[in-house]
Amino acid sequence: MQFLSDNAAAVHPAVWAALRAADEADAPYAGDALSRRLDGAFAELFGRDCTVLWVATGTAANCLALATLVPPHGAVICHREAHIETDEGGAPGFYLHGAKLILADGYGAKLTPGEIEAVIAPIRKDVHQVQPHAVSITQASEYGCVYRPDELAAVAATARAHGLTLHMDGARFANAVAFLGCAPAEAAGEVAALTFGCVKNGAMNAEALVFFEPALADVARYRRKRAGHLQSKGRFLAAQILAMLENELWLENGRAANAAAQELATAAGGRLLHPVEANELFLRATPDERAALRAQGFAFYDWGGDAARLVTAWNNNPEHVAALARAIAGL
Amino acid sequence: MQFLSDNAAAVHPAVWAALRAADEADAPYAGDALSRRLDGAFAELFGRDCTVLWVATGTAANCLALATLVPPHGAVICHREAHIETDEGGAPGFYLHGAKLILADGYGAKLTPGEIEAVIAPIRKDVHQVQPHAVSITQASEYGCVYRPDELAAVAATARAHGLTLHMDGARFANAVAFLGCAPAEAAGEVAALTFGCVKNGAMNAEALVFFEPALADVARYRRKRAGHLQSKGRFLAAQILAMLENELWLENGRAANAAAQELATAAGGRLLHPVEANELFLRATPDERAALRAQGFAFYDWGGDAARLVTAWNNNPEHVAALARAIAGL
Amino acid sequence: MQFLSDNAAAVHPAVWAALRAADEADAPYAGDALSRRLDGAFAELFGRDCTVLWVATGTAANCLALATLVPPHGAVICHREAHIETDEGGAPGFYLHGAKLILADGYGAKLTPGEIEAVIAPIRKDVHQVQPHAVSITQASEYGCVYRPDELAAVAATARAHGLTLHMDGARFANAVAFLGCAPAEAAGEVAALTFGCVKNGAMNAEALVFFEPALADVARYRRKRAGHLQSKGRFLAAQILAMLENELWLENGRAANAAAQELATAAGGRLLHPVEANELFLRATPDERAALRAQGFAFYDWGGDAARLVTAWNNNPEHVAALARAIAGL
Amino acid sequence: MQFLSDNAAAVHPAVWAALRAADEADAPYAGDALSRRLDGAFAELFGRDCTVLWVATGTAANCLALATLVPPHGAVICHREAHIETDEGGAPGFYLHGAKLILADGYGAKLTPGEIEAVIAPIRKDVHQVQPHAVSITQASEYGCVYRPDELAAVAATARAHGLTLHMDGARFANAVAFLGCAPAEAAGEVAALTFGCVKNGAMNAEALVFFEPALADVARYRRKRAGHLQSKGRFLAAQILAMLENELWLENGRAANAAAQELATAAGGRLLHPVEANELFLRATPDERAALRAQGFAFYDWGGDAARLVTAWNNNPEHVAALARAIAGL
Repeated sequence: MQFLSDNAAAVHPAVWAALRAADEADAPYAGDALSRRLDGAFAELFGRDCTVLWVATGTAANCLALATLVPPHGAVICHREAHIETDEGGAPGFYLHGAKLILADGYGAKLTPGEIEAVIAPIRKDVHQVQPHAVSITQASEYGCVYRPDELAAVAATARAHGLTLHMDGARFANAVAFLGCAPAEAAGEVAALTFGCVKNGAMNAEALVFFEPALADVARYRRKRAGHLQSKGRFLAAQILAMLENELWLENGRAANAAAQELATAAGGRLLHPVEANELFLRATPDERAALRAQGFAFYDWGGDAARLVTAWNNNPEHVAALARAIAGL
Repeated sequence: MQFLSDNAAAVHPAVWAALRAADEADAPYAGDALSRRLDGAFAELFGRDCTVLWVATGTAANCLALATLVPPHGAVICHREAHIETDEGGAPGFYLHGAKLILADGYGAKLTPGEIEAVIAPIRKDVHQVQPHAVSITQASEYGCVYRPDELAAVAATARAHGLTLHMDGARFANAVAFLGCAPAEAAGEVAALTFGCVKNGAMNAEALVFFEPALADVARYRRKRAGHLQSKGRFLAAQILAMLENELWLENGRAANAAAQELATAAGGRLLHPVEANELFLRATPDERAALRAQGFAFYDWGGDAARLVTAWNNNPEHVAALARAIAGL
Repeated sequence: MQFLSDNAAAVHPAVWAALRAADEADAPYAGDALSRRLDGAFAELFGRDCTVLWVATGTAANCLALATLVPPHGAVICHREAHIETDEGGAPGFYLHGAKLILADGYGAKLTPGEIEAVIAPIRKDVHQVQPHAVSITQASEYGCVYRPDELAAVAATARAHGLTLHMDGARFANAVAFLGCAPAEAAGEVAALTFGCVKNGAMNAEALVFFEPALADVARYRRKRAGHLQSKGRFLAAQILAMLENELWLENGRAANAAAQELATAAGGRLLHPVEANELFLRATPDERAALRAQGFAFYDWGGDAARLVTAWNNNPEHVAALARAIAGL
Repeated sequence: MQFLSDNAAAVHPAVWAALRAADEADAPYAGDALSRRLDGAFAELFGRDCTVLWVATGTAANCLALATLVPPHGAVICHREAHIETDEGGAPGFYLHGAKLILADGYGAKLTPGEIEAVIAPIRKDVHQVQPHAVSITQASEYGCVYRPDELAAVAATARAHGLTLHMDGARFANAVAFLGCAPAEAAGEVAALTFGCVKNGAMNAEALVFFEPALADVARYRRKRAGHLQSKGRFLAAQILAMLENELWLENGRAANAAAQELATAAGGRLLHPVEANELFLRATPDERAALRAQGFAFYDWGGDAARLVTAWNNNPEHVAALARAIAGL
């Protein structure tokens, strides 16, 4: 019973169907009919113009986005535990040609205006110190916490005040929207670029990189090719993404994963280290307790010495979830 | 009737089957059972130890390979019309951190010892000039020409004499082996790294990057992640590649494309600009002649002002091929 | 008797005097009084606003300039024999993060509109090919040839028509202005950035990087620091440059070197491979003839198998020049 | 009365004399007689073979050194307040092509085995996290503290245990050796590369980059050119460095600066935030106290809100030092 991550889950049947339907040859790269439908589909979703590029991974999407916002001699402010800092193998250093990540604190791996100001304040405005050009936030955060629209507005205002642009890593954007119950645009706020995650949410290997400023997309298209991410049968990536949008599958899947997480959260009660707002749970558990859970067949990651990380997915077996909830309650 | 390229062709049924069979969650990234079978499968194919990484595109495979062979202050010798020079959007400059491509001539887009020596000779061995560290060759070449084993040995000897390592872009390696009728190892020669192409040959979006020196693969694994090419559901890439190897599907598909090309080549006769040894044809055709072909429903690219490029694929409809052969013969 | 190059010549007494006068501590980096005088001094020289940064080498100046004009995914058009291509150890690849040099032909190592158009024409305007963003020209060229103002205007018009910005490598700008007898601004034309060379013309280790668009200088200042070129005792670089400008020393030195070259050119007559317009001569000379010159004590470089390169400097001993002229005439 | 920094101090008369003596043209770049004497001079100083490159700045020296030790996908462990992290404008990101700095703590800006282990421990040995390849330490540290030989040995042992190489930023190496009273080799320990600082210690614009492994220097030579740091009149940099070594001028100057610092330290007493072991003092001083010092004509930097940084130099006027000592004592 797998609660290690949502990143290797099965592919949703609707995505499979879309993939099969895309088999016939079409124009290569992003010239096919499906790829050309992406801008419109996301414009409808967000209620404003946007330009959308598919890429195969969230790392590539995040880094291509940031590469359009930050020059090589600049920096990105992000949370100390942001995925781009901790788990992307230094990809931002590669894509941004040595630009820096400036690490801020913040409860639940969320940035606040205060924390952003705190890292900007000591930076002298001279050439000896690397200047920030953008802020990257994660929705839902690495600890499964969700920015409220007013929090996003506050972060955006702070960014604007310092001339910084905003990027959102939305690897679990669906879970955030499902939690907030708001319009996607409200959950994104004033970001210039959004990584709209699909892989963790039922797709095979396609993420949507959404630009709300077309000039950025023009640059990103060159960078995508240059990074070896322009697949010749791009129609198969577009197909996955469109399938996710169709009938709000992305949101339905996000809700399913969130619901499973809530069931576990209820069982975990006071063990929770962070509020459970998406599909990740971090709960206090001694080594013995973790061993006990594993002995019952549950797979998950340790989180430091005293905690466990549990991640639900769109397709968790309800019986497995219920069993895990019981097991946690019984610790 | 599509003869534009093999790069957007349909996915082979066996690959589809393998993809579906890989749906169940397994360890993420390259830790799954399928990914772990790659080294062995290619060792069997090549009759020697090798280490294999999947990536989604040939551009990424080529550049990751070269990044392990060439330091940022070095250079790669390649043909003036090599794909890495002309059609990868500057990806080598990105992946190799500004290393240079040194462009050599050679009939049929193939390098020879003489052409390699000709570009090395004028390079002063001082720090003012960028020194070559590797040679990259394409099998089959960008003009559909195939290196014979003795030609490969000669190129390898030249490279060795200058302390250069060898990379092979095998986007159409299957077509080369099908043409040569030799063992895969003979068609690869003494290369340190080979991009074993699958996408143009029936796969969806997976290429195999084969290292014959394990230390290079250790570096490439970090670089793959850093480039955003480590997909979390990597099992779907491994599945495609294994399906290509199963029952020699890769070779069968290469033969099918080659056969179609031969049928066209026979019809083209004296119009051919290069010998047809793989699945690409370059034939003299005036604008009027090309218009005539297009009027009959054939799609292909112009090649300069006086020629056409035709590419066959593993799945060309035999009737379309026959029709095109007749149309060419009738020009 | 040294005619190898102007790049290692002695330092002019006026530069020495300025260096000594700058000894007293002042604000570090570029905050000292001398550094702050550079903008004004060059504004006067060129009759228009400009922003000037000192750096220690022409390579750094050229590359910092280009880094402000060209994104990592772009390219610079330059002559096939431009110093940035042939003799800077791949520095543009480093500073421009892998951007490409697109190599054009042109007699005397000078670009023309036709040659620029010839390299642009085959570039497809798609992401698979690297797009040019700037043109770099050398005044005087690597073959000692000088762009006339109308030639500069034509190149600028071509660049503008394609949306390209212009950089000038003026390592021997003084020799060009001395030859043209025009205002410096006319010898520079409509470039966005100019490397105003001093090292080959009497300075020790300071070049002036002149930006005619202040926003570019703002970027270059960060890049200079990032490249380790912001010296803490920058006043010594500013002092050298100001000494070169004082009383038109730069022009006087350029004239002296040119005059020596003309004396040699007259002696060389029909042996000259290029018109002698600055301080470099390329003359046909068999190995025996070169040996004969060397036997008489003259040091110079071979240029391929059949020619010699002779370079005069601001401080050539007139007797050495006369002796060499006689020796050449006597071949 | 200037106590802002040692980085803009006057040039020592012996350096001036050496510069003047180097005026006559010699082979360009690093081929001149003076440059060729560097290896031997430092071999004598350190009692072991070494290969030495001049460069104009400490930033360039540090980064060229690190670029030979760390691949682009790797990382350097350094102190959180190391100059390479805080004050080099992101130069390591540029020179190391996006490699990371991993920031460790440590009193007095010195690393200890424990602090190094503390940052290594949480790094998973997988491709998702950037792996350290080197450790960079500063002797004397950014807080003017000096590593003892046994501390260096302990750091080296830790580095070795993790397969990491060692770099030493010796911008103020002279002050460290002067403090320790030991052989230079003992103050360097087992580093692979050392930036031997001269600029802060009486030179104009030359630092010596000392490699104790010749293969590293071979790479660094290409990187130096590629970074635009290979000056054509390199003899002027070599001359400065040789003048520093002659008659132990470097050590004499280091002692002079240290002595001045000690005089101030005695006056400062309990105000000191760090032990004064080199030529920097950090002392508690309220805004009013700092204003009082400035009113008496002393220039220095604030250090946060509650402290002042005072730096002495080789050429401080003894009366100024005495006056400042009195002023501090009188606060």
